[in-house]
Amino acid sequence: MAEAPRPSVVPPGMEANWYKPLTEDGLHRIHEASLTLLERTGIQVLPSECRDIFKAAGARVDESKDRVFIPRPMVEDGIAKAAKEVVLCGRDSRHDLHLTGRKVYMGTGGAAVNVLDLESGAVRQTVLADVARIGRLVDALDNIHFYLRACVAHDCSNELLDVNTAYAALTNTSKHVMVNAFTSKGAFECIDVAAMIAGSREALDARPIISFTSCWVVSPLRYAPETVETLTEIVRQNIPVAISSAPQAGATSPASLAGTLVQVNAEQLSGIVYTNLVRPAARVIMGFVPSVADLRTGNFTGGAAEFAMMHAASAQLGQFYGIPVYNSSAISDSKLPDIQAGYEKGITSLAAALAGSNYIHHSAGLLESMLTVAYEQYVIDDDINGSVMRAVRGIEVTDETLALDVIDQVCNGEGHFLGTEQSLALMNTEYYYPHTADRRRRGDWEETGSRDMREVARDTAREILAIHKPIPIPAAVDSAIRQRYNIILPPELAAIEDQ
Amino acid sequence: MAEAPRPSVVPPGMEANWYKPLTEDGLHRIHEASLTLLERTGIQVLPSECRDIFKAAGARVDESKDRVFIPRPMVEDGIAKAAKEVVLCGRDSRHDLHLTGRKVYMGTGGAAVNVLDLESGAVRQTVLADVARIGRLVDALDNIHFYLRACVAHDCSNELLDVNTAYAALTNTSKHVMVNAFTSKGAFECIDVAAMIAGSREALDARPIISFTSCWVVSPLRYAPETVETLTEIVRQNIPVAISSAPQAGATSPASLAGTLVQVNAEQLSGIVYTNLVRPAARVIMGFVPSVADLRTGNFTGGAAEFAMMHAASAQLGQFYGIPVYNSSAISDSKLPDIQAGYEKGITSLAAALAGSNYIHHSAGLLESMLTVAYEQYVIDDDINGSVMRAVRGIEVTDETLALDVIDQVCNGEGHFLGTEQSLALMNTEYYYPHTADRRRRGDWEETGSRDMREVARDTAREILAIHKPIPIPAAVDSAIRQRYNIILPPELAAIEDQ
Repeated sequence: MAEAPRPSVVPPGMEANWYKPLTEDGLHRIHEASLTLLERTGIQVLPSECRDIFKAAGARVDESKDRVFIPRPMVEDGIAKAAKEVVLCGRDSRHDLHLTGRKVYMGTGGAAVNVLDLESGAVRQTVLADVARIGRLVDALDNIHFYLRACVAHDCSNELLDVNTAYAALTNTSKHVMVNAFTSKGAFECIDVAAMIAGSREALDARPIISFTSCWVVSPLRYAPETVETLTEIVRQNIPVAISSAPQAGATSPASLAGTLVQVNAEQLSGIVYTNLVRPAARVIMGFVPSVADLRTGNFTGGAAEFAMMHAASAQLGQFYGIPVYNSSAISDSKLPDIQAGYEKGITSLAAALAGSNYIHHSAGLLESMLTVAYEQYVIDDDINGSVMRAVRGIEVTDETLALDVIDQVCNGEGHFLGTEQSLALMNTEYYYPHTADRRRRGDWEETGSRDMREVARDTAREILAIHKPIPIPAAVDSAIRQRYNIILPPELAAIEDQ
Repeated sequence: MAEAPRPSVVPPGMEANWYKPLTEDGLHRIHEASLTLLERTGIQVLPSECRDIFKAAGARVDESKDRVFIPRPMVEDGIAKAAKEVVLCGRDSRHDLHLTGRKVYMGTGGAAVNVLDLESGAVRQTVLADVARIGRLVDALDNIHFYLRACVAHDCSNELLDVNTAYAALTNTSKHVMVNAFTSKGAFECIDVAAMIAGSREALDARPIISFTSCWVVSPLRYAPETVETLTEIVRQNIPVAISSAPQAGATSPASLAGTLVQVNAEQLSGIVYTNLVRPAARVIMGFVPSVADLRTGNFTGGAAEFAMMHAASAQLGQFYGIPVYNSSAISDSKLPDIQAGYEKGITSLAAALAGSNYIHHSAGLLESMLTVAYEQYVIDDDINGSVMRAVRGIEVTDETLALDVIDQVCNGEGHFLGTEQSLALMNTEYYYPHTADRRRRGDWEETGSRDMREVARDTAREILAIHKPIPIPAAVDSAIRQRYNIILPPELAAIEDQ
């Protein structure tokens, strides 16, 4: 995994323009319907600074119903003002993400509450050490491009949660870190810790190594008052933020996929209007997270084909507006890393990536409809993402790859391509070789214990956790953070430079 | 599985126009290079009727090198003459396949030599009873649309193999059956048995319930003399045939994906020219089966992203010519139904189907790079195919699905979509509900034994084999077949009408 100075076969940020689940006509109709929805049905916003900002900008407010109606020109203005590229930085600049156009990055996500214990396989509550250790895995795995904190630290009080989560993530990976903040105070603390690690508040502004995800909407079309306040503060601080709305088709949005897309798109556009009123060209990423309610039970469902299509369609919508997109894949509904988890992840990740989604979170580690993570699942999903990113890269057609001379030479010569110069040259550039998936014949596989991919991945996860060393933060910085904040993560679970 | 008179959410033969791994320019360059290859490098054909047919039509023959060079106008003529639709029938006309355009059908394939025993899980050689029992599974599973015999009957002598395989398949499913014939005599016997079941040779001509796959090419660009003879006889009999060429990138074709596509396309076009010389508008399906050699070991690899892309590209090539395409997906390199098998199948099947491949064989049952099948894998792959076919169906955008009124009503009313008329109406039409994948929460799942998908699928496979009754063939027909041929399948393993 962490070997190669060789250039990657599947570098982060390749462009995908391959899969379009919406026709041009369908795309336009969803766009138009979203504008109609904002103008006619509007969004629910309780009396607040947010509502005042909308009103001052010219939105019609029905105070008896607490609804804000956004006229079409205001939406168009918001889209025009919106940032067309958002750069998310890593502590190591090799991990910077340039979210724009059809560039594809895949990383973690979720707020899982349980983890499958790496030794026993039993389910247990997640704690802060899991945030740290998962960060270390993400740091080591090449096809997980960023670290959105994946689970809840149940051993942190509400007051300590935000800052400790940010600290545990930032000190275990030099990839970009995205967090959630439950309060404005929590957000300020996370920003402060990131600024200390970045060197200064200005350095953080220049290279944002931290960003936020904000679930400011409660579907359908309602703003969550406190979360909006936090979102407003983050935008004022010029820190990147993904505005995430997550309607569930059949429960909190229409059962029709097109209707759910209309609603999530309207929610997103309202957020683009709002954040760009707070700060024009704010570093905001559209966050489409439509899911499905299994209408037999009402259960949240993330592994369905309907989910996959809606996320690919979201990428098309973002590209239509030219605004970066945050969405999801690889949320399996299986309770363990079995064949169900495999196909649900394969299908949803391929769909989202081939459509050119910019920031595909949830794409590693998750099981049980987002409730559970598993260490070995990160290793497995790294291989899945490698395969998906190979498909993103596509098929290069050049005079050289068309290979007419090679074929002619082999047909008139030895009859085999294995030893040709071209084969040797392409071995390390044309193919993604999985690190954990097994391609051996049965006899060879039996000789090493007939282990399934999950078992092999467990070993890899253990090995990474035992030996991988992320780029450390200076000890002085760590001390300063610990003096200012009540950091409960033991120093040995953070990468700190020896003095 | 076999319940519903309700219309299917994912009917066979839906059209897919969603995924295009080749740009227009890339597609044209591959086409042009293929024509150059046929003209300049040519194909190896030993002295034979086939070579005489090529020569008589105007191909240049280099007798010292046994190579046939096909001029560009001859290829264009072959493409023009070729059948643009091939209909493959089932004993039950509900299962007819109309191979044309971008219609998608998914079914079995392979010539596996081993099976994972349904009870012990241990690997053992396949026998004729497996051909029969797998046919019965295929008959019961809605998202496996045809039965290409999937494994080798090791208990049949060479002489009995073809006819017994055809009998075992045709008497266990009313879906379309495709077989291989190792000799012309074997092909005639299969056709005869099918004609007896169809009612007459004319009835079979009108409704071909049997077809063949012919591996007449040994890559790179060599015709296999005896197989070509059999192919020629099948075409003369007007029985549908998929001409299958299966180069392995890096071993029997260039390591570059584009080069492998050029070669397989040239092989295919030569076959289209040849079969249409034998019989204009012959019922021929282009059979692209490019695979990958893992260049670290030389092993055949079917689960790779590179495989997935080449098969989607093959669909584009077939659509470019307007000729139906047979290709592959779901060939996992895993030795058992684990998470590796899941993601490899999910990725390769989604890619092939979204590209509009007409006849995706191998898409159920296979493991271990085609060497092994497993009963439970058919059940699992039926769910995977259901999910994939849901993505093929796409997102319907209409005034009704845009759902502006429903959203407005919910936002101004009860705030929830679960009870709306639309949700109730769409429950049975908008969503594919898996029969075996598990969407329950952990507690519910633990209460029923914490079983993974493989274990549940085993039960389903056992249940189908115990109770499913395919449409039987008349006892008189069975007697007549058994009088004419040495059928070693016990009658109780065939569906025969009680007298």
